[in-house]
Amino acid sequence: MFKIYGDIFSGNCYKIKLLSDLLEIKYEWHPVDILKGETRTDEFLQINPVGAIPVLVDTTGEIYTESNAILYFLGRGSEYWPETVELQTRVLQWMFFEQYNHEPNIAVARFIERYLGLPDERKEDYLSKQKGGNRALKIMNSALSGSKYLIGEYPSLADISLFAYTHVADEGGFDLSQFPAVQKWIKNIKRLPNFTGMEI
Amino acid sequence: MFKIYGDIFSGNCYKIKLLSDLLEIKYEWHPVDILKGETRTDEFLQINPVGAIPVLVDTTGEIYTESNAILYFLGRGSEYWPETVELQTRVLQWMFFEQYNHEPNIAVARFIERYLGLPDERKEDYLSKQKGGNRALKIMNSALSGSKYLIGEYPSLADISLFAYTHVADEGGFDLSQFPAVQKWIKNIKRLPNFTGMEI
Repeated sequence: MFKIYGDIFSGNCYKIKLLSDLLEIKYEWHPVDILKGETRTDEFLQINPVGAIPVLVDTTGEIYTESNAILYFLGRGSEYWPETVELQTRVLQWMFFEQYNHEPNIAVARFIERYLGLPDERKEDYLSKQKGGNRALKIMNSALSGSKYLIGEYPSLADISLFAYTHVADEGGFDLSQFPAVQKWIKNIKRLPNFTGMEI
Repeated sequence: MFKIYGDIFSGNCYKIKLLSDLLEIKYEWHPVDILKGETRTDEFLQINPVGAIPVLVDTTGEIYTESNAILYFLGRGSEYWPETVELQTRVLQWMFFEQYNHEPNIAVARFIERYLGLPDERKEDYLSKQKGGNRALKIMNSALSGSKYLIGEYPSLADISLFAYTHVADEGGFDLSQFPAVQKWIKNIKRLPNFTGMEI
């Protein structure tokens, strides 16, 4: 059975759980507490030198890191990875957008608010994330105004990747009611068979 | 013929040129000047709503963005994309590492120094990038101490992706002599047949 090391309230970790549940892949969940420094211990750095979660350990003991690479590993043979190189490239395009434009704004703002309790010394940083986060949500809203899912009429790894932090963006101070196509898309994903939320 | 919109001194754009040259893919290069605001004009935002380069336009007029997704589009059928899902996942792992841990530190420090001339108001930002950049280089150095290329004995899209900003990291204040395995790897890539540098 696969082992997943993660914090279920981290969107990057939740992505892996959500895809596994959707595909009915069995896994053992190993909780890791970021705030207690558990990703920076010598033991953990042996597993992942980047000091980040999630980490997936497959049945042969091989270790995989980077949430979106793990989504590929688990989802490549499924309906969440399309068949043509053109659509595959679109999926990757959205996943790189997620790690570069979306996560560093929305996930970080949420971390400062939800995990750290919005302390004064992080307020400037928090506010600077609002602009970039809203820009990312606007780009998603525009794409989703024309289609049910990010790359067309069927859900893909791109949706799983971007759903994780988007559906809890309000916890980072973002107002999703400004992005109606995103709200509709969140409802569509929540209706997928075997969908599960941020709990173990 | 493919069209590539880019700035050749941007590592993200150079990646696309380098892979195209290695694979002898023909392209028309359309220069875009970031400093003149050419990525934020209404006309350009129609092409890429994210307002970033590179952009690839294929022979049918389809538009692709995100440098590492474009590498996949161009390289998927070549020897730079390995055959097993395990190695493919490793390639993606390094490419997501590049966009999350490497580029935001090394490329941004280089931009501040080389493009902006290290103005006083960006000095704090510049210094904060040194720590993360050196950490990324250390992780690469450790991986490259055990193998010729990032995922083993053959070059892959992971190497093209990470070579782009690494080989000019000195322009962002990084001292590559501290990372001998990285220096050796740079030499190996420069010896690949059809290798070309940052010029058109």
